[in-house]
Amino acid sequence: MRTASERTFRLVVAYDGTDFGGMQSQRDVRTVQDVLEVALETVLKHRQRIVAAGRTDAGVHALGQVVRLRTKTAIPEERLVPALNRVLPADVLIRRATRCASSFHPRYDARLRTYRYRIDNRKVPDVLSRRYAWHIRDRLNVETMQEAARAVVGTHDFAAFCSAGSPSASTVRTVTQIRCRRRGGEVTVDIAANAFLYRMVRNLVGTLVDIGRGVRPPSALHEVLESKSRRACSAPAPPHGLTLLRVDYSRPGGRKGEPHENIHSET
Amino acid sequence: MRTASERTFRLVVAYDGTDFGGMQSQRDVRTVQDVLEVALETVLKHRQRIVAAGRTDAGVHALGQVVRLRTKTAIPEERLVPALNRVLPADVLIRRATRCASSFHPRYDARLRTYRYRIDNRKVPDVLSRRYAWHIRDRLNVETMQEAARAVVGTHDFAAFCSAGSPSASTVRTVTQIRCRRRGGEVTVDIAANAFLYRMVRNLVGTLVDIGRGVRPPSALHEVLESKSRRACSAPAPPHGLTLLRVDYSRPGGRKGEPHENIHSET
Repeated sequence: MRTASERTFRLVVAYDGTDFGGMQSQRDVRTVQDVLEVALETVLKHRQRIVAAGRTDAGVHALGQVVRLRTKTAIPEERLVPALNRVLPADVLIRRATRCASSFHPRYDARLRTYRYRIDNRKVPDVLSRRYAWHIRDRLNVETMQEAARAVVGTHDFAAFCSAGSPSASTVRTVTQIRCRRRGGEVTVDIAANAFLYRMVRNLVGTLVDIGRGVRPPSALHEVLESKSRRACSAPAPPHGLTLLRVDYSRPGGRKGEPHENIHSET
Repeated sequence: MRTASERTFRLVVAYDGTDFGGMQSQRDVRTVQDVLEVALETVLKHRQRIVAAGRTDAGVHALGQVVRLRTKTAIPEERLVPALNRVLPADVLIRRATRCASSFHPRYDARLRTYRYRIDNRKVPDVLSRRYAWHIRDRLNVETMQEAARAVVGTHDFAAFCSAGSPSASTVRTVTQIRCRRRGGEVTVDIAANAFLYRMVRNLVGTLVDIGRGVRPPSALHEVLESKSRRACSAPAPPHGLTLLRVDYSRPGGRKGEPHENIHSET
């Protein structure tokens, strides 16, 4: 294949995390990164390490993971996505590829990450959502959960919600929104922040669910936050209920309000 | 375990058809029937052939399949469902068990079967529904589909929609309702009939989708029906989009409007 000057692309990637050991490359485990890099090598004829916006854990899904790709291969821009999707397995899909500045960094440039946690709150679990939602038989009080959740909105030290193994120096993050909703038999928790600590969403949801069940008081979330102690937090919610919905950038990889951000869109 | 006089139960069963070669027992294939019979043998300590309301094909799902169980084992009624669910794999679930007359027959006594066909009509497929919905990239005209669908409501000879391999003598069936809807990026076709011929729903949906795409005129469904020829029909929709939602009985296994019929319920 002809080579050209290097181009940088921002790829928006969706995957079903069920059969993956996580996003990031690891020895002896099937990871999204490895599967993507193999597909890229097949299409572009060169090995290329990719960089992703979020290091999602084993079992966690994504509809709007963002990945940076640099290539000198002269594949026409409009052929890149179809060519990659043809060689990717059924559980990974490139939704979009857009040219961006060579300086673009998916992780450092991200301004906002949005996750959704799905809870199957039917008395009898729905077998068809068991891979994507955590089944909780006890009826959750969503209003109490929403009220409690307000405590974490804003800039706080989230050390209490950070599981061991986090490489982060600072544990201060800014949560811009958290929304608990019931839709039929399903309860969803949507949470947006500038960035998240290791297992922060699952630790938050674990505590919120204990509040929704009535086994901890609505004040518990605020108290856990203030304690700055991981021991105060409930057990994390399991990974399979979690989906990275989208990552937003204001510069330099993209403009705010770009079409890719409307992830689970109508069309 | 103590034995008692024989009791007959009507079980409402849900399963994810992805990893099954269909409902009915077959050699060298994992089937729902075999998995259920193994679980029943574990719990009841005797082998029991079950009878199911619908012989769903490989890859087809169910939220409300109905199965008859006869047993002399003296397990308390309230322990039957939990005991079975403990030994069943994650992709099969007993939703409910109710005592019924020994004469109850899930297939012959069924008065109405309701299926849902799910179509992922987003331009970019949703990786998280790929096991449960057929992806059609072209935007479907749901109004045209609904208009065309009216042609099959009522009692007709559905020979044109019956794939080879059907053991049925008569090909006359009564469709009581067919409803095409768009909800966000997803299109669903719900269809209820007294009974269905082999692959009838998938053959109907295949033709409806061609109408919704505009590659066949809205009159095509009526014309295929009138032709009574399978060759006039479009290719069947793939099995993974299809779910058996519920089976309704009026006698003698149950009363109309029983709670089990509200299948994908709120709680």
